[in-house]
Amino acid sequence: MKKNSVHTRQAWQKRLERQLRGAGAAWQKIRSLNAAGKKKILHWAAHDLENQARFLLQQNAHDLAQARKFNLSAAMIDRLTLTPARLKAMADGVRAVAALPDPIGKVLTAWKRPNGLRISKVTVPIGVVLIIFESRPNVTVECAALCIQSGNAAILRGGREAFYTNRAIAAIFQRALAKFKMPIEAVTFVETTEHAAVDFLLQREGEIHLVIPRGGQSLIRKVVALSRIPVIKHYQGICHVFVDRSADPVMAERIALNAKVQRPGVCNAMETLLVHEKIASRFLPQLALKLKAAGCEVRADSKAYALMRKSGGLVKKARPSDFGFEFLDKILAVKTVRDIAEAIEHIQRYGSAHTDAIVTRDRRQAEIFKAEVDSSSVMVNASTRFADGFEYGFGAEIGISTDKIHARGPMGLEGLTSYKYVVEGTGQIRR
Amino acid sequence: MKKNSVHTRQAWQKRLERQLRGAGAAWQKIRSLNAAGKKKILHWAAHDLENQARFLLQQNAHDLAQARKFNLSAAMIDRLTLTPARLKAMADGVRAVAALPDPIGKVLTAWKRPNGLRISKVTVPIGVVLIIFESRPNVTVECAALCIQSGNAAILRGGREAFYTNRAIAAIFQRALAKFKMPIEAVTFVETTEHAAVDFLLQREGEIHLVIPRGGQSLIRKVVALSRIPVIKHYQGICHVFVDRSADPVMAERIALNAKVQRPGVCNAMETLLVHEKIASRFLPQLALKLKAAGCEVRADSKAYALMRKSGGLVKKARPSDFGFEFLDKILAVKTVRDIAEAIEHIQRYGSAHTDAIVTRDRRQAEIFKAEVDSSSVMVNASTRFADGFEYGFGAEIGISTDKIHARGPMGLEGLTSYKYVVEGTGQIRR
Repeated sequence: MKKNSVHTRQAWQKRLERQLRGAGAAWQKIRSLNAAGKKKILHWAAHDLENQARFLLQQNAHDLAQARKFNLSAAMIDRLTLTPARLKAMADGVRAVAALPDPIGKVLTAWKRPNGLRISKVTVPIGVVLIIFESRPNVTVECAALCIQSGNAAILRGGREAFYTNRAIAAIFQRALAKFKMPIEAVTFVETTEHAAVDFLLQREGEIHLVIPRGGQSLIRKVVALSRIPVIKHYQGICHVFVDRSADPVMAERIALNAKVQRPGVCNAMETLLVHEKIASRFLPQLALKLKAAGCEVRADSKAYALMRKSGGLVKKARPSDFGFEFLDKILAVKTVRDIAEAIEHIQRYGSAHTDAIVTRDRRQAEIFKAEVDSSSVMVNASTRFADGFEYGFGAEIGISTDKIHARGPMGLEGLTSYKYVVEGTGQIRR
Repeated sequence: MKKNSVHTRQAWQKRLERQLRGAGAAWQKIRSLNAAGKKKILHWAAHDLENQARFLLQQNAHDLAQARKFNLSAAMIDRLTLTPARLKAMADGVRAVAALPDPIGKVLTAWKRPNGLRISKVTVPIGVVLIIFESRPNVTVECAALCIQSGNAAILRGGREAFYTNRAIAAIFQRALAKFKMPIEAVTFVETTEHAAVDFLLQREGEIHLVIPRGGQSLIRKVVALSRIPVIKHYQGICHVFVDRSADPVMAERIALNAKVQRPGVCNAMETLLVHEKIASRFLPQLALKLKAAGCEVRADSKAYALMRKSGGLVKKARPSDFGFEFLDKILAVKTVRDIAEAIEHIQRYGSAHTDAIVTRDRRQAEIFKAEVDSSSVMVNASTRFADGFEYGFGAEIGISTDKIHARGPMGLEGLTSYKYVVEGTGQIRR
C-alpha cells in the first residue's frame, strides 16, 4: 500500500543495484564471446520463442486482461497482442540477426607511423545498454537479439502494460544464455514498475554506457533531461517531398502517394509536400484526386488550394501551424515554392532533419538538394518511406537516430559498437 | 553592482539567445564551404596570430595583471602567458589543421540495393559545437581552427582568468571569417562571465549539437549533470603498464620510465605498474634505482616493496587507495601479479579504460591482452604516452574521449563530423 515508503524504495533500489552489478559482470563475459557462440544462443532463443508459444501466449493473456486498466487504445492492444504467427515472425527476426556478420573485432582501419608503431582501430561492444520502451513486445525481442549479437549486455525496461509478456520473452533469452554457459544477466529485465526506477537508472553513469529510449516524445524528453548517460534518441520525423519543375509528374505522384499514405503513422512518412510553382498546375489537380481516393485530407497554401479544392476531397486552407507538424495520419500539408532555394529553406526551417526527398529529372537540382539538405536521409527520386534499417540492408534496426552524435538515421548493429585503438610497437618511447 | 538582479539576468540571457541564433545561421553558411574556402580563412587567421602579436600580448597582459585576483598557481600563469614564440607555435598549429584533408563530403561507404536504390554514407559537419574550457588560450585557437576546418560553428566559453586573451584570439578568427565573406558568428565568443550562462547554454538542445568540456573533473561532472545536449568528455586516465614474465627487462624499464616520468601530469602517463611475479626480482630492483634517479616516489605492494626498498629511493608500502588513483605526479603504484589474468582483472577493476600497455616477448600473451583489455588504447611494447591525436597521425586533437559513444580515445577532425545517407532512385516506392 505504502508504495513510496522509504522501506519499499530501498528494496527496489537494492534490487536495481544488484541487477546493475550482474549486468556489468555479464558484459565482461559476453563481450568476448565469438561469433559462433553468439549465433548458437540466438538460434536457441529463436527456437524457444516458437517452442514456448503456449507459455508466452499465456503471459500475454495476463497483460491483455489488464489492458482496460491501462486505458490502452485498440491500436495499442493490437501491438501488444501475441499470436503464433507473430511469435514465428519474431523468431525469424532473431534468426536474421544471428545471420548477420559479427560486428565485433572488425579492423576498421590500420596504419603504420614513421616511428614504426602499427595502429589499428578495432570494433568493440559498447557495454551495458539500457533500453526504455513502451508496450511493444517485439522491441524486447529485437533489442535482446541485437545486444547479444553485438556483445553488449541489455537492460530492458518495458512498459507496465506489457509486463508479463516482456518478462517471459526476456526469460527465453536468459535460458538461451544459460544453455551456453553465459551469465543470464546479459539480458536483464527490470521488474520494478516504479517510475522512479528509470530516474535512478539514468544516474548510473559508469555502470550503464548507453541509453536508448523508444517511445513517445514525452518519454524521450524526460530521459534526455534526467540522464547523465549518453542517450541516442528519435524525436520527430517531419519529412518533406519536393517536386521540382522538371519532375516526371507520374513518378512524382507515385512517390508522393507512397510517402504519405502507404503507412502514415510512421516517422518516415511525408508530412509536407513542396511543389515548384511551375509544375503545380500540371501536378496538383491530379494528385488531389488520388489523395481523395486514399482518404487523405489536404491542408494547402492558397495557390495549391486553388488547384486542389475542385477534387471533391477534403481540402482545407493551411494554417501556419500545419507546416512543420508531424501529423502521423492521413493529413498532408502542401505548399508551392518559387524555386529549389525556397524549398530547401522551408525544409531547414520546418523539417526535423530526418528524411527529405526531391523528385526531379534535372541532375543539377538533385546535386544542389543532396548537398544543401542536412537531413539524416536525403532522397532523390525515391519515397521517404525507404529510410529504414531493413530497407538500407542493415538486416536489423535498433532504432532511427535523429541525433548527429554516434549514430544518425537508421541504426543497425554498427550503432551498438564502439572501437579501440590497438598499438603495437617494438619498445618505442615518447621523446 | 546588482549582478544577479532580474534585469541583468535578462540582459545576458537575451545576449546569449542572440548569439545562439547567430551561430546557427553562421553554421548554415560554413557547413557548405569548400575545402579551399576553409583553408583561406585558416591561413589568414594564422597570419594574423603572428601579425597582431602586439595586440594579443597587450590583451594577455590584462589577464596576467589579474592573475593574483583569481589565485592562479605558477603553472596556470605559465599556461596563460603568451609570448611571440607561443603565438608562432599557435599559428603553425592552425596551418597544420588547414593542411589536413577536408573531413566533409567524404563518402564513407556506398552500396546498391536489390531494388536499384543507390545509397551512400557521406560525412557532414555536426553543427554548433559548444566548447567549455579553463585558462589555456591555445584551446581557443585549436578549437576555432578545428571547427572551421570541419564546417562546424564554434561557441567558445573560456575561463574568466583568460577572458581578454581568449576574446582577442576569437576576434582574429572572426576577422578572418569576415575577410572571406563568412559570418563571423561561426566563431562565437561568450562574453558573459556569469556561471549561470553555462547552465543556460547546456539546456539549448536543438541549437547546440555537441558539448565538449575541457578541464578538470568537477567542470566535466557539472556539465554532464546539467546538459541536455550530447557531451563528449574526458574523465580520468588511470593507465597501467603490465610487465609480463617474458618481457625484455631493458625494454620494460625504458617503457615504464617513459610512461611514468617523461610527463607525469598528463592523462596518458602511467599510474600503476603491474609486474609478473616471475620477473619481479630481475626487474624491480633496477627500476627502483632509475625511479629514484628520476625523483619518482614508489608505492609498492609487499612483494614489490621488499624488492625495491633497498634502492634508497622514496619507496612506501602501498595503501589500497593507491591503486586506481590518478596521481598526475611523480608517484607510481606498483603491484606484482601471479599471471596475465590477474593483471587484466586489476586493469578492469581499477583502470579507467583510457590506455593500458603490456610489455612482452610472448606473442600469445600479447594477443590475450589485446583482446581482453577494453581500453580506448591498448598498447603492446610501447609507452602509454603515445595515446595522443598527434602521435596517432591525426594531425590535430580536439580532445581525448573516455566515452565509448561517437568518439573514443584521441579525437581529431573525424570526431567533429557526422554523416548522412544519400539515397538515389529512379522512382522507387515502398511496397
